[in-house]
Amino acid sequence: MEDREQLLTPRSEEARLNGLCRWSAHTQGLQAKVVEDFRRRLKYFFMNPCEKYKARGRKPWKLMLQILKIAIITVQLVSFGLSNEMMVTFKDENLMTFRHLFLKGYKDHRVGSYALYTKDDVYDHIYYIINTYTNLQNLTVGNLAYEMVDGEYTALSVCQEFYRNSSIDPGNETFDINPHIEKDCISIYPMQSFDNSSALLTHINFILDFKRLLSVSVNLTLKTINLQTVRHHELPDCYDFHIMITFDNRAHSGKIKVDVKNDVRIYECRDWNVEGTSDENDYLLLSFDSVVILACFASLILCTRSVVNGIQLQFVSRERSLLMNIVSWSDRMEFVNGWYILIIVSDTLTIAGSALKIGIQTKYLTNYDVCSILLGTATMLVWVGVIRYLGFFKKYNILILTLRAAFPNVIRFCCCAAMIYLGYCFCGWIVLGPHHDKHHQQEKVPVSQLQAFIAECRDQPESGRYQTDEDSASCCVSPCCCFG
Amino acid sequence: MEDREQLLTPRSEEARLNGLCRWSAHTQGLQAKVVEDFRRRLKYFFMNPCEKYKARGRKPWKLMLQILKIAIITVQLVSFGLSNEMMVTFKDENLMTFRHLFLKGYKDHRVGSYALYTKDDVYDHIYYIINTYTNLQNLTVGNLAYEMVDGEYTALSVCQEFYRNSSIDPGNETFDINPHIEKDCISIYPMQSFDNSSALLTHINFILDFKRLLSVSVNLTLKTINLQTVRHHELPDCYDFHIMITFDNRAHSGKIKVDVKNDVRIYECRDWNVEGTSDENDYLLLSFDSVVILACFASLILCTRSVVNGIQLQFVSRERSLLMNIVSWSDRMEFVNGWYILIIVSDTLTIAGSALKIGIQTKYLTNYDVCSILLGTATMLVWVGVIRYLGFFKKYNILILTLRAAFPNVIRFCCCAAMIYLGYCFCGWIVLGPHHDKHHQQEKVPVSQLQAFIAECRDQPESGRYQTDEDSASCCVSPCCCFG
Amino acid sequence: MEDREQLLTPRSEEARLNGLCRWSAHTQGLQAKVVEDFRRRLKYFFMNPCEKYKARGRKPWKLMLQILKIAIITVQLVSFGLSNEMMVTFKDENLMTFRHLFLKGYKDHRVGSYALYTKDDVYDHIYYIINTYTNLQNLTVGNLAYEMVDGEYTALSVCQEFYRNSSIDPGNETFDINPHIEKDCISIYPMQSFDNSSALLTHINFILDFKRLLSVSVNLTLKTINLQTVRHHELPDCYDFHIMITFDNRAHSGKIKVDVKNDVRIYECRDWNVEGTSDENDYLLLSFDSVVILACFASLILCTRSVVNGIQLQFVSRERSLLMNIVSWSDRMEFVNGWYILIIVSDTLTIAGSALKIGIQTKYLTNYDVCSILLGTATMLVWVGVIRYLGFFKKYNILILTLRAAFPNVIRFCCCAAMIYLGYCFCGWIVLGPHHDKHHQQEKVPVSQLQAFIAECRDQPESGRYQTDEDSASCCVSPCCCFG
Amino acid sequence: MEDREQLLTPRSEEARLNGLCRWSAHTQGLQAKVVEDFRRRLKYFFMNPCEKYKARGRKPWKLMLQILKIAIITVQLVSFGLSNEMMVTFKDENLMTFRHLFLKGYKDHRVGSYALYTKDDVYDHIYYIINTYTNLQNLTVGNLAYEMVDGEYTALSVCQEFYRNSSIDPGNETFDINPHIEKDCISIYPMQSFDNSSALLTHINFILDFKRLLSVSVNLTLKTINLQTVRHHELPDCYDFHIMITFDNRAHSGKIKVDVKNDVRIYECRDWNVEGTSDENDYLLLSFDSVVILACFASLILCTRSVVNGIQLQFVSRERSLLMNIVSWSDRMEFVNGWYILIIVSDTLTIAGSALKIGIQTKYLTNYDVCSILLGTATMLVWVGVIRYLGFFKKYNILILTLRAAFPNVIRFCCCAAMIYLGYCFCGWIVLGPHHDKHHQQEKVPVSQLQAFIAECRDQPESGRYQTDEDSASCCVSPCCCFG
Repeated sequence: MEDREQLLTPRSEEARLNGLCRWSAHTQGLQAKVVEDFRRRLKYFFMNPCEKYKARGRKPWKLMLQILKIAIITVQLVSFGLSNEMMVTFKDENLMTFRHLFLKGYKDHRVGSYALYTKDDVYDHIYYIINTYTNLQNLTVGNLAYEMVDGEYTALSVCQEFYRNSSIDPGNETFDINPHIEKDCISIYPMQSFDNSSALLTHINFILDFKRLLSVSVNLTLKTINLQTVRHHELPDCYDFHIMITFDNRAHSGKIKVDVKNDVRIYECRDWNVEGTSDENDYLLLSFDSVVILACFASLILCTRSVVNGIQLQFVSRERSLLMNIVSWSDRMEFVNGWYILIIVSDTLTIAGSALKIGIQTKYLTNYDVCSILLGTATMLVWVGVIRYLGFFKKYNILILTLRAAFPNVIRFCCCAAMIYLGYCFCGWIVLGPHHDKHHQQEKVPVSQLQAFIAECRDQPESGRYQTDEDSASCCVSPCCCFG
Repeated sequence: MEDREQLLTPRSEEARLNGLCRWSAHTQGLQAKVVEDFRRRLKYFFMNPCEKYKARGRKPWKLMLQILKIAIITVQLVSFGLSNEMMVTFKDENLMTFRHLFLKGYKDHRVGSYALYTKDDVYDHIYYIINTYTNLQNLTVGNLAYEMVDGEYTALSVCQEFYRNSSIDPGNETFDINPHIEKDCISIYPMQSFDNSSALLTHINFILDFKRLLSVSVNLTLKTINLQTVRHHELPDCYDFHIMITFDNRAHSGKIKVDVKNDVRIYECRDWNVEGTSDENDYLLLSFDSVVILACFASLILCTRSVVNGIQLQFVSRERSLLMNIVSWSDRMEFVNGWYILIIVSDTLTIAGSALKIGIQTKYLTNYDVCSILLGTATMLVWVGVIRYLGFFKKYNILILTLRAAFPNVIRFCCCAAMIYLGYCFCGWIVLGPHHDKHHQQEKVPVSQLQAFIAECRDQPESGRYQTDEDSASCCVSPCCCFG
Repeated sequence: MEDREQLLTPRSEEARLNGLCRWSAHTQGLQAKVVEDFRRRLKYFFMNPCEKYKARGRKPWKLMLQILKIAIITVQLVSFGLSNEMMVTFKDENLMTFRHLFLKGYKDHRVGSYALYTKDDVYDHIYYIINTYTNLQNLTVGNLAYEMVDGEYTALSVCQEFYRNSSIDPGNETFDINPHIEKDCISIYPMQSFDNSSALLTHINFILDFKRLLSVSVNLTLKTINLQTVRHHELPDCYDFHIMITFDNRAHSGKIKVDVKNDVRIYECRDWNVEGTSDENDYLLLSFDSVVILACFASLILCTRSVVNGIQLQFVSRERSLLMNIVSWSDRMEFVNGWYILIIVSDTLTIAGSALKIGIQTKYLTNYDVCSILLGTATMLVWVGVIRYLGFFKKYNILILTLRAAFPNVIRFCCCAAMIYLGYCFCGWIVLGPHHDKHHQQEKVPVSQLQAFIAECRDQPESGRYQTDEDSASCCVSPCCCFG
Repeated sequence: MEDREQLLTPRSEEARLNGLCRWSAHTQGLQAKVVEDFRRRLKYFFMNPCEKYKARGRKPWKLMLQILKIAIITVQLVSFGLSNEMMVTFKDENLMTFRHLFLKGYKDHRVGSYALYTKDDVYDHIYYIINTYTNLQNLTVGNLAYEMVDGEYTALSVCQEFYRNSSIDPGNETFDINPHIEKDCISIYPMQSFDNSSALLTHINFILDFKRLLSVSVNLTLKTINLQTVRHHELPDCYDFHIMITFDNRAHSGKIKVDVKNDVRIYECRDWNVEGTSDENDYLLLSFDSVVILACFASLILCTRSVVNGIQLQFVSRERSLLMNIVSWSDRMEFVNGWYILIIVSDTLTIAGSALKIGIQTKYLTNYDVCSILLGTATMLVWVGVIRYLGFFKKYNILILTLRAAFPNVIRFCCCAAMIYLGYCFCGWIVLGPHHDKHHQQEKVPVSQLQAFIAECRDQPESGRYQTDEDSASCCVSPCCCFG
């Protein structure tokens, strides 16, 4: 086992051991042998795997286990990543399909740029959605189907939100408004067919009072099956897409923004049959996951034991008053190996992630995201942990020590720069921030998935949730570039 | 109170005090006690809050006041920023609405890329604007209304500017031109309706002589109410949009550039009623602003007193000829604490900004921009001022001193580089500058709000205002990148 | 000949020779003359060309040969590059032509953004392709012709792939699927003409069952001649374009991606006549290539001799036990000059590349790509080899030595950083990787030819070939930027 | 006058003068006084203006002249730049107008992306151009007029270039081609009107044989007057636009690229009258230009005199054998002040540029580009020359000397890196270079005017002019970034 703290330079360790030697020289006599034994035990504790093998012939099982772990965790991650990507792609492509089917004249618009400006356009778009919905089976090339509850199709609902009553006369500069919001919905059932828009118009009798209108939202539910997993020897999942098309008029600025969002529920299909398949592939994956869990559990136990050993050793040495001069915090920290903590955290995450993965594979669970984060973080820590083994080589050790020494100064500089930056950000946001041009936004492509993730947040400004977030939202674009 | 200059390294201060000591050794006797007292007073003056508390038990009220100020100013800024953003977004979205309503076939063109090339297109566009205007109430989804003056609707005016008379014959390479510019307008009233464009054509009898034409400008005024503030418990404002659509033919290059601009006037509506609202929210905001003003006023007085104290102390020392050797400029500047100047400036700006904000909140004022700049600059200074407190820690102090020492060299290098850069800019502008391709501009997205702000300037080249601005306009794109 | 290792600093060499001197002082007597001779031979071996000329009047033939080689290889490369570019441009422009001719409403879409969402669109597109194919001669402005086999035109084939049988009912959350894939094709011959789509429809009787459909692929072969080479005095080649248009429904997500790819076969035309041409240009190129091969062969032999000389000298010295103290690996490596290895590799590549080029020029071969890589790599090595001659100047030598000394540390740092980066990559891929938005991709322009090259890879995720590639595909975007 | 070399550090000058002192100590006696005088003369020669004023009370006229020159040259440059920009903008906007008028369905396409793929499209486009040309006066909003020669309108010519005869049969893999190129033109006169395209078709009888076709080019000449200068109190110029629309089929790849180019001739109109103008503005500009020329001439004479003085002083010292130890090249160069050379070059350029500017202003010349380059370079040099005056301050002098000392090492490193880079470039170009995707190019926006300028070069690959240019064209994208 490799119990030695390898971030210690030989020189400083030597110095410390010299200190111990000097100290022991004062307490000659009976205690001498005990001290000598303890010192040997300590020295062994701080040896690296290679030295331990030389000293007692102990084979570096733990080191081998770590190397094995890196290999299997990486393989597991890649396997999970591929199946995860298939699911995400399916969701994304369906959302794109809904946008093309339900939005009239949609041409891969950028987020936020699809907007309406005239009354006729708004009515047109709503009728277009209803028409598409009722004729969906004749239009779509996908396996989309209407939802059924108790043998009946669920309806598409068109809801409008509006102020309870209001008399707004900008010409006279007067208004009388009741800010209480009311909601009014109509339902359209799938199998109705309308000859033309006027027939639809008379049927549904849907009138919008744009002066009071806050938003129109069309809700519908479609079901589909992700068939492509069949070709990868995975069982197809059933998907429920709850689609919400919103016409947002809350600004009353003459521009109604249209957006399509969907909520997805993934679950095992009720009844299924795939001809000619065997469960071999499934069993293989499950057994592989089990091997990962076992390996991580073994590593977890071994590392925990080493940490406990270290702490015990420290207490023993203090109890027996052997090492009175080891009082400083940094000296005491040497008994606890930081790398073990890293491995323990990583192992815990891997075990949790693998357990989740088994649940997903056996279709009991569908929370891919949590599993992604657990396995991803674990793998990152495991790979970062490889640096430890580089530390066994002298040259690399110097490099690592240098980086560690420079760290506080870098942090200090960042701290100072952050103050200037924070002030600059507040000033910039307030003075220039709001002067967005909607052209400008049109050009601003979401650079990363992170931004896309943030863009999902639809909280209204009045919600009060921005009191602390807003500043960072407008500031955090390039702090690293400026002060890195 | 923290009256100590903390940018002083302990070593240099020590050296100076040693100097004082040596001097006092020469004037022993009667004056010795006076000098000793004065030296103690001086030492106390240069202590930091922590040391003052240890010395006389004086609690660091001023430090606490500054920390409180940072918190409340930041909160105030965020609150103002959100309401400012709402106003700016409303203005921007309305401008976008006008572009989509009044420009035929407008598809989120980039600034400057919407242009016409044929005579028919120009007439078509003008008729389209008139038609949209007369049918506005049936088209728009916003709360737009025509302006009324004395019970009558104000008219849309179509004005053309042209040379008084000109006979231009490029084929014969001759021209006879009178550069005096004449203006001819027609008015269209909102409630007129025209069956088709030919009816409109006969009615308005509007003929353009493109050879003499300089520009056609369509002016109209629309009123609206920013209702969305109701949902944020603020009172809706009334907006007057003075829309100006210009067809610019001043270049006579066969390309007529079309642009829509709007001037906004924001004011309190004449008569209003919002059911179920209370003024509680308003009172809360106003009282919060008052707290900010009070805090800044207190901070202003305390800092001014400290500065005055420092100057007095300096004069006293020179009067009494106690510190004859303190004659150098840098020694004398140590009595005036630069950070106090920073705080005083910041406080003044905050008080002015908060007063303006109260005016805006109570709808007496609408100059959001000035208030933005005042509050933004103040907050920036306050946050930069935090660096001062980092200077109390030894490690950070060294960092700050290093930066201060390096500053003159950096400035010196920049100075040198600026000369080369200036020459390079002039040369680049004159040799390559004008060869714009209109494709190139089409791609050049306004990168920042600053650029959008600059783009608002519509001064003609002949106005003479560019004699000093033009060079910097073409040069100042990346000086900091090159020589930063 | 320049046999001296010029990366040796004078100082270190002096030290080594001093060592030899001290050693020889111990073995005085009979052996003294032998040693002296051998030492002189060694010293001559390590001299640079200039010193050799001074020592024995030997002219630096090898140096001159290298300089000549650089010139002619570069000229050859440029000549080949121009003719290669012509071929690639012709291929690319034809692919673009096929996209515009066969895809209805194609407007220079970005890769992956051309997709269909409704059943009618899919049928429309297939009919459009068939119509274009049957009327090709009336449409295209190029020299495209149908392929003929045994006097008959080859057919366009429309193939659909689908699951053998499946009953998929997402509404009931049930499915019964046989994942075995069947294929069904129809053939259309060029000279058939259809009055309208309905006539075509009844004729071909082509029905798609979208629920089972995996993909539709249209295959056709067109022939053309790259005439433009005539104007560059090269003989025109004949091209076979095997065009494959795929409608990809494997995801069953409601979105059918359409892509046009082509496979090209280039070969000498069967029968041709170009009036007024002579073969002079061809002979000139071939003889130039031969000169390149000869020069490289001479250089190859000379360098190999020098390497062999060095190794012999080393063995001689060890046999005769003359230089017992030369045992270290680095000392022994000094006998083998690394630059010679570089030149030998470069020469081998050039000879192979030039031979290939002759084959291409005489139309026996058409593998431009392999030839590109051989000649390109060779030229790169030759130019990098120029640094060697800079090493003859003292100032440059120091620079090169510094770089060489810094190299291991740089590698070491990269090694360490790679670990962190690898962990970061795995984590990033799994957590954020799959969340592509299709808007995002639309904006992501292929930045380099390398990316475009990678994008050509169409392996399916299930192929198993991604087990090791996938991670790097998502990670390798900016490693150099971060750790360079 | 400031004759002193101010880049000399005081220390090195002191060392040199010390050398002189030691030398003079050897030749005591009669020559002592002569030497003393000469030494004083030398010392005066190397003084800076400030010291000269102190020494002899000589006022720094030359320094003042330089400062005056900087001011007036900059003003002149800005004035010229503005009028230059007006001319360039007019040209660019007219080119854009021609593209929109003559290209059917042109929508601000990027350069190179406007292409045709079917025969009908090509005919359609040609007819569209002819129709636009014959109806130009009814379409354009600009002052475009047909050219008249001897009272008759000049014709629009449609020319096709094709191989003399060719029988190309890609289906049989045979071709028989005569690479001699023939040209066939038809002429259309402006005032002809065609009812519809078929009438036009029968009239012009224009048939293209696409298999032999190399290119179709439409040439026409239009005249216009740049009226907008009237408003800037400049006289309007007459412009001849020679428009050439090319349909490029030289690749025979099925894609015909369409491009519009124009050649411009600018000249004074034949007969003109602008009411109410005076020539005051013109006279003012001319007299200002004259002042610039006079100032530069004075500066030129003074600097030349100083340079001559320095050289004379050097010869005198060598003749009289006074300074025998001044033999090194660097010592001798000290007599010639590099800054004077800079000023002399700058003055010469300014005088030439100003003379050209007077010619342009008085409408005798129209070569704006040459004048731009002369004045731009001159101004750059003048501003760079300001660094010289910074050198009078000690701190700045050290900065400048440091930069000068570091220069050779930077050059040396660049030299080394260039070798690697050159090899890398050749390899990259040949291996990856030609694999352009036409999508990729579509995205590649010309980043700068320089690129747009380069894009104007239309040399054919076979012209042989690329033998040395091509490599740099593909390589020079980021050399500075990599090795800067």
